Amino acid sequence: MAVSEFELIRRIAGIVGTARQGVTVGIGDDAAVLPPDLVWTCDLLVEDVHFRRRTTSYADLGWKALAVNVSDVAAMGADPLGALVGLVVGDGVTAEDVEELYRGLDACATAYGCPVVGGDVSRGPELSLAVTALGRTASPVLRSGARPGDVLAVTGPLGGSGAGWHHLDGRIALPEELAAHVDRRHRRPQPRLAEARVLAGRVHAMLDVSDGIASDALRLAEASRVTTVVDLDALPLDRGVAEAAAGLGVAPGVLAATGGEDYELLVALDPADVADAGVPLHVVGRVEEGPVAVRFTGAGSADALGGWDHLGA
Amino acid sequence: MAVSEFELIRRIAGIVGTARQGVTVGIGDDAAVLPPDLVWTCDLLVEDVHFRRRTTSYADLGWKALAVNVSDVAAMGADPLGALVGLVVGDGVTAEDVEELYRGLDACATAYGCPVVGGDVSRGPELSLAVTALGRTASPVLRSGARPGDVLAVTGPLGGSGAGWHHLDGRIALPEELAAHVDRRHRRPQPRLAEARVLAGRVHAMLDVSDGIASDALRLAEASRVTTVVDLDALPLDRGVAEAAAGLGVAPGVLAATGGEDYELLVALDPADVADAGVPLHVVGRVEEGPVAVRFTGAGSADALGGWDHLGA
Repeated sequence: MAVSEFELIRRIAGIVGTARQGVTVGIGDDAAVLPPDLVWTCDLLVEDVHFRRRTTSYADLGWKALAVNVSDVAAMGADPLGALVGLVVGDGVTAEDVEELYRGLDACATAYGCPVVGGDVSRGPELSLAVTALGRTASPVLRSGARPGDVLAVTGPLGGSGAGWHHLDGRIALPEELAAHVDRRHRRPQPRLAEARVLAGRVHAMLDVSDGIASDALRLAEASRVTTVVDLDALPLDRGVAEAAAGLGVAPGVLAATGGEDYELLVALDPADVADAGVPLHVVGRVEEGPVAVRFTGAGSADALGGWDHLGA
Repeated sequence: MAVSEFELIRRIAGIVGTARQGVTVGIGDDAAVLPPDLVWTCDLLVEDVHFRRRTTSYADLGWKALAVNVSDVAAMGADPLGALVGLVVGDGVTAEDVEELYRGLDACATAYGCPVVGGDVSRGPELSLAVTALGRTASPVLRSGARPGDVLAVTGPLGGSGAGWHHLDGRIALPEELAAHVDRRHRRPQPRLAEARVLAGRVHAMLDVSDGIASDALRLAEASRVTTVVDLDALPLDRGVAEAAAGLGVAPGVLAATGGEDYELLVALDPADVADAGVPLHVVGRVEEGPVAVRFTGAGSADALGGWDHLGA
C-alpha cells in the first residue's frame, strides 16, 4: 500500500462522506454517533500486525479485542451496551483455542458491562478479530472541542504497553518484575471507563491513547483545527519504561509518546478545571492557536516522532 | 478445525451466553436485539472462503459486504440505521482498489439507506471485510416463531447465486445471457428490505436465505423447536439454475436448496395469509410438530444435503 493509513481513511471519507442525513458524527472520531444517543465503534486485531500468536494467549487476545473497543466507547463519554465479534479462525487454531479466546472476551465483557451479543465466524489463513461495540450517551465528547488556552492531560502513565511489546518481541531484556508489569499492560489493557464517565461533563475534548500520544495529539489537532503541544518530559512514565527506553537507545519520553496501546484518556480542558476534574490528571501539554499540527518539546523532541500506521510494514 | 461452524457457535454461546441482562436476543438469530428497539448484525467476507479476487471486482465486493448485512437487518423486520466497515487490506491491494471497494459499499448504502458511518482499516495477508449493520424496529421478527400448521414460503427464485458461484469458478459453462444473470445474482445480491417491511407484521418467523434453504430451514427448526419440511420440487428456480444443475449433474432443486447466498426471505406463516401477504410468496414447505430437523421431499431429496460451513474446507 503506497499510502498511509490516515491518507487512505481520508480518501474513504471522501467516498462515503463524514456525515450523512441521520448521522450525527461519521468517520473521524473514536466512534460514530447516531441519534438519538448511540455511539458505535469497531477495531480490528490482525495476527502479525497487532499481535503474535507466539507471545499472546488466546484469553489475552479475547480480552484485548473487546477492551480496545470499550476504550473507544469510553472515550466518547458513553456507557457500553454490547459487542459483536467477527472471528476469522486462522490455520491451526483449535475449537479449544476459540473457547479460551471467548473466555477472555467474556471476562472483559463482565468487567466492563459490555456483553457479547452475537457475531460471525469463518475460517481464513490468519487469525483475526473484528470487534464492534455499541454505547449510549446523551452528550458525546468529541475530539473537535479542544480550544486554544486548554491544557492537555492524560489519566495515567504511558509507555508501558509499548515497552511490553518490545519486550515480548525479544528486542529488550528487563528485570522479571518489570517485565511482568509491562507485558501485562500490553496484553490486558484496562479501558478508563469509570474515569471517562467522570470526565465527560468537565472536558472539552477526549480520546483514548491508542496509537501513541504523538499520533493521537495530532488527531486532536486535526479535529479541533488547532496546534497541540506535547512536552515529552512531562509525560508520566509507566514502570519499566525508563529501563526499556535505555535498552532501545531512545529517550523515555519518546517511547512513552510513540509506544501506543496504553488506552489512557487524553483530554483537553480549561487549566482551572484540572484540580477538581474528579480523577487524577497529568498535564502533558497545551492547545494553541496555529496551524493544524502537533509540536513536541523536551528530551527527544528533535527526533522524528510518529504513531503506529497499521498499513505500514 | 475439527468441529463444524454451528458446533463452534454452540460452544461460544455456552461461554458468552445467549441472552444477558439488558439484551433481548443474543446469539442465534439473524441479528442481536437490544432494547428498546435496536437490531445489530455482522458478517465476515474472507478472501478464498467467501470470494475470490480473480472473479470479483472490488466494487462488487463492497456492494456484497454491505448487502448481506442489510439482508440480516431486513430479516428481523427492521430498518437499517448505518454500518461500520472493518477492512483488512490484503497483499497487493492498492489504494485505488480500496476506493473502488468503497464506491461499491456506498452504492449499496445509498440504495438501501444504510450509510457507512465509520470502521477500521489494517493491513493483513489476505483481503477480508467485517461489516456490521445496525437497524431499528419496535417488533423484531425472530426465527423462533414458526408453529406447526404454518407453511414455509420464500420471496423469490433460488439457486441463481449458487449457479453463479459454480460458473465463476469455472466448473460449468452456460449460455452468455444466463451466465451474466447468475454471475450478477452472485455478485450483487439484492436484500429484500421492502418485502421484509411488508411481511414483518404478517408472518410468524423470518430469516434470510444465506446458507441455502436446506441449512436455513434447519436453523428455523432449531429456533422454533419444530420439524420443517422442504419440497425440493416446489422451490422456485432462478433462470439458469436448471442448466447449471445439469452441468453439475445434480437435481435443480438440490442446487436451489444448497447453493446459498440468494438473500431471499424465508418465512413461516398461516396458510390462510399467503394470498394477502402483501408481496408475492412461493410456498416451498410446511412446519410440523416433531423432532428438531429439516426433512426434504421431491427430486434429489435422498441425497445428502447441507448448506455452507464456513469452517469446512
